[in-house]
Amino acid sequence: MSYIGWSIQDWVKFHSDSTPEQSFALLSQVLTSQSSDDPAWISLVSPANLQHQWDFLQSNFHKTQLPLYGVPVAIKDNIDVKYLETTAACPSFAYDPQEDATTVKLLRDQGAIIIGKTNLDQFATGLVGTRSPYGVTPNTFNAKYVSGGSSAGSASVVARGIVPIALGTDTAGSGRVPAALNNLIGLKPTKGIFSCKGVVPACKSLDCVSIFALNLQDAQLCLDIMAKFDGDNDEYSRSLPTNPLRAFYKPTIGIPNNLLWYGEEENPKVYNKAVSVFEKLNFELKSVNIDPFLALARLLYEGPWVTERFVATEEFFQTNPPEKDLDPTVTQIIKGGEKYTAANCFKSEYKRQALLQQINKIMNQNDVIIVPTCPLNPSIEQIQKEPVKINSYQGTYTNFVNLADLSALSIPAGFRSDGLPFGITLLSKKFNDFALLDLANQFLKANSKNRFAGCLTDVLIGAADELNASLPKPNPQTSIELAVVGAHLKGFELHWQLQKVNAAFVKQTKTSKNYKLYCLPKTGPVMKPGLRRVNPEEVDGAQITIEVYSIPVETFGDFIRLVPQPLGIGSVELEDGSYVKSFICEESGYKAPGTIEITKYGGWAKYIHYTKSQAKKPF
Amino acid sequence: MSYIGWSIQDWVKFHSDSTPEQSFALLSQVLTSQSSDDPAWISLVSPANLQHQWDFLQSNFHKTQLPLYGVPVAIKDNIDVKYLETTAACPSFAYDPQEDATTVKLLRDQGAIIIGKTNLDQFATGLVGTRSPYGVTPNTFNAKYVSGGSSAGSASVVARGIVPIALGTDTAGSGRVPAALNNLIGLKPTKGIFSCKGVVPACKSLDCVSIFALNLQDAQLCLDIMAKFDGDNDEYSRSLPTNPLRAFYKPTIGIPNNLLWYGEEENPKVYNKAVSVFEKLNFELKSVNIDPFLALARLLYEGPWVTERFVATEEFFQTNPPEKDLDPTVTQIIKGGEKYTAANCFKSEYKRQALLQQINKIMNQNDVIIVPTCPLNPSIEQIQKEPVKINSYQGTYTNFVNLADLSALSIPAGFRSDGLPFGITLLSKKFNDFALLDLANQFLKANSKNRFAGCLTDVLIGAADELNASLPKPNPQTSIELAVVGAHLKGFELHWQLQKVNAAFVKQTKTSKNYKLYCLPKTGPVMKPGLRRVNPEEVDGAQITIEVYSIPVETFGDFIRLVPQPLGIGSVELEDGSYVKSFICEESGYKAPGTIEITKYGGWAKYIHYTKSQAKKPF
Repeated sequence: MSYIGWSIQDWVKFHSDSTPEQSFALLSQVLTSQSSDDPAWISLVSPANLQHQWDFLQSNFHKTQLPLYGVPVAIKDNIDVKYLETTAACPSFAYDPQEDATTVKLLRDQGAIIIGKTNLDQFATGLVGTRSPYGVTPNTFNAKYVSGGSSAGSASVVARGIVPIALGTDTAGSGRVPAALNNLIGLKPTKGIFSCKGVVPACKSLDCVSIFALNLQDAQLCLDIMAKFDGDNDEYSRSLPTNPLRAFYKPTIGIPNNLLWYGEEENPKVYNKAVSVFEKLNFELKSVNIDPFLALARLLYEGPWVTERFVATEEFFQTNPPEKDLDPTVTQIIKGGEKYTAANCFKSEYKRQALLQQINKIMNQNDVIIVPTCPLNPSIEQIQKEPVKINSYQGTYTNFVNLADLSALSIPAGFRSDGLPFGITLLSKKFNDFALLDLANQFLKANSKNRFAGCLTDVLIGAADELNASLPKPNPQTSIELAVVGAHLKGFELHWQLQKVNAAFVKQTKTSKNYKLYCLPKTGPVMKPGLRRVNPEEVDGAQITIEVYSIPVETFGDFIRLVPQPLGIGSVELEDGSYVKSFICEESGYKAPGTIEITKYGGWAKYIHYTKSQAKKPF
Repeated sequence: MSYIGWSIQDWVKFHSDSTPEQSFALLSQVLTSQSSDDPAWISLVSPANLQHQWDFLQSNFHKTQLPLYGVPVAIKDNIDVKYLETTAACPSFAYDPQEDATTVKLLRDQGAIIIGKTNLDQFATGLVGTRSPYGVTPNTFNAKYVSGGSSAGSASVVARGIVPIALGTDTAGSGRVPAALNNLIGLKPTKGIFSCKGVVPACKSLDCVSIFALNLQDAQLCLDIMAKFDGDNDEYSRSLPTNPLRAFYKPTIGIPNNLLWYGEEENPKVYNKAVSVFEKLNFELKSVNIDPFLALARLLYEGPWVTERFVATEEFFQTNPPEKDLDPTVTQIIKGGEKYTAANCFKSEYKRQALLQQINKIMNQNDVIIVPTCPLNPSIEQIQKEPVKINSYQGTYTNFVNLADLSALSIPAGFRSDGLPFGITLLSKKFNDFALLDLANQFLKANSKNRFAGCLTDVLIGAADELNASLPKPNPQTSIELAVVGAHLKGFELHWQLQKVNAAFVKQTKTSKNYKLYCLPKTGPVMKPGLRRVNPEEVDGAQITIEVYSIPVETFGDFIRLVPQPLGIGSVELEDGSYVKSFICEESGYKAPGTIEITKYGGWAKYIHYTKSQAKKPF
């Protein structure tokens, strides 16, 4: 049985078709197939630990409903996993964590099985994947090239299809760059929505846990699972809004007109091809000067934020760790953080704020900006020659993102003529993480309906990129359920008004037997029905088919603006006797001359279908 | 003619009743009455400059509609006013500003006349008003006591009724403390909503321009005028939301259970009396532990934010200014900012973020927290003995406010037995500035309907605290106008539902002649009407009196949740033929048995009045 390249859904399906023994056997096979020589792994769970995890999962009464039931995952080795050492790729830094990091716990609570901890640029300082005493993690497409980093191992094990999901971290590109270089989805969430409790800090004020996945649906599911407020444990934790944006409605997409490629010639071609796909999708594309973004990236690189890395490792370096355990480039960078003064800090912060004023202006004019994830696909030899310069080039389009508090999603964009992959990153304002996945889905479908999973040329991803329409769940405290009756039904002319206010489909249902439906006289371009509750003495009401949507309460007003007289928003009785908000109609509407009663069709869709079938008749 | 103690409204009224010559004569009198020996002033405009300002104002075609037409104001001398030196209370620091600070320009654009620049603790570093080579500014009640600072002079000239309004700055209490010690309104706006362009920075990341006023209405008017986004000129500028909260609806008020008084015995009594007033107002009072706030205050005092003061004056101190120009305490404090490292900065920032998680939890449970503005009323002698310690005590309840990004309003709370005033500060989340004024109005009315203006025992403020109901103006892009017909009218049972969603009254008006009104059968505790648009063939419709409110679009959904069947929100035709959103009613509602047509009364209020008058009849 080959599990290689399986998505979360493939694993869940396998388990549901298997006995627990078969399930555990396959998970054991995943573990035993791994070699300790594989530089992607720093540690693997013991067979006993795997058994323990499995037994614990079996004791969960609701186990089979868990969305990650029995799904193997890998965790970057700067994130705590109980019973495994956390090394941050530095042997003498290693410690035994007392508990799981919050993100690991959330995955486990949903059924995930941790397989092992993955290699990284030491202390998550690097974008290359070569800065580790545990070995260089090679690119999964061509071992002469770098995997990208710092989350090198997590990218490698997902790209090779060993696990469908791995966690990385992403302070300045560490999650996005290796995703791009290994043909993966790399989701860098909005800062703070994933807890950093149990993560070795790099720059604490900027750190994010990130997701590596083969397809968008898997990334979306993990985003939904891990976005939980954790303010008691993480000073930078923030809540995702209770009704985060699900999709951009007619987005304006900014295309930078001043990209830096550092002499690279292949990647601009792949990038431009990707842009042309967005063009074909009929989005509004806008040329945009990203100078303030680039200036912010330089500010991170040249400014005092590196002192955060110094602060995070200060005590460790005071122990005089053996040199063999230290990556010399990383040590040099971190020690460089000592020299900055508080005055440097505040001056840089003022510069950042001034740049943010410019950046916010740009982000107010563009729903999304599309940048290369990284400009280059460096070889290991190149990095060994110029360990700092090329690394810094690679951060051009990732360094500024957390400083500007943006959401970012790196996605596969195609291949170069040498077969290496290229990735683009979709950038948006904070909390637009789910909407970026939706946009990525549209792009990937249009760019390559069936693309390779990671580096696996025999595993194709087709439907697996399709998002789960019901994520995230609408919150009844912050949403209003609204029944729509006519032109707002799915497939009808005004359905876009629901999309525009970030509405989520709840169900199709019927009214109670107390209603009549009328086709109102046409006064505008769109035909509309009027729903009428029968009067107390009337006995010939009927059930009318309707659709219920959940609309964020803060956008409900925007929706209601669009509702013209004689329609309004009142309440409708459903077939179960409960009431939800609904379109209603003033009496003067359905008493107007030209109104046709259409109750007998049982709903607007059937009536429209009938009129169309009539229109087709040859006589 | 004595202008002493005049409010903005008094000045505007005087000007509207006077010839331009009389107006200018009185403004000249204000200026010539000032003495250059008065330590509250650092500089006064020249008579020629006053003439120039007046002439310029006269050239404005719309001058008489300006809300500050001919109103004299004073400006703290760390805020740029063209043609006057900015000294920041340090003679050798002085420079000639090329233009007005943004806030000064905004006041001038609305008709204000600048009289002069006021004294301050040097570089706005202090809460006492004694740290200035331009002299000690005495308390306006008793010259043996400090005025409070750093905005000492601005407080003094307003408390003495010389000008109705003065600008201060408030980084850590500089606007609130002197307001409290001189019986004034001290409005410390949400960080960023007033531009700091043209302000000598103290701690740039925390600085605010603040307002001193004799009454709430004047403060409210200036808040409305000065809250303008200025992102191109101020890196910390932020927009006030387009529909800021106007009033707290049934607020929960947190009363600290662990206040520090440093041995003071009088002020706790005045404070407790003020709390008892809130109790009598029937607000929900909640005991709250403010340890995280106090810890944040200490963090400001002991932490690297003082480096911002060092950064702001670094170049100046490099010029080796003469010692006579420097306040030794201020110099010592500022030079202390040099020693901090970037590591100190980040460590303190992490602590702040951890405290903010706790503070945000408290602010989510309390709409407002009420603290003493400052614990003590120190004498000048005391401060001269212990210039640093008592100053630091005074910041106990102000230091943390900008670090926690709160809005704050200091208001007079009463007098001690020695006649000195005591102030309390209302704290709330950011952007609640207008709502704090509304709460303060309720308190001041209940506490002392007619209170003294500043230190003037012959000028009383009664109605002058009443707020202007139409500020801030609702934005049609972000609000929805809604006509209410029955129980939501002003004075009726469900009017609170409008208050709860921050609705602003727009107008009373009538529908077109196409409506009928019904009293629906009573199904709950509240009687409700149903508005019905007549059918196309009906000719006996009538006009119905309604009220229109502007509701922020983001709260409209919250309002609509509260609307039960058979009512709904549709559209109504007004007497001018336009349509606005309105309550409508399903036919099944007014066709239900027990409905009474009440069209002939012309509106719900008249019908209810009629039923009540009927009920009173003895037969």
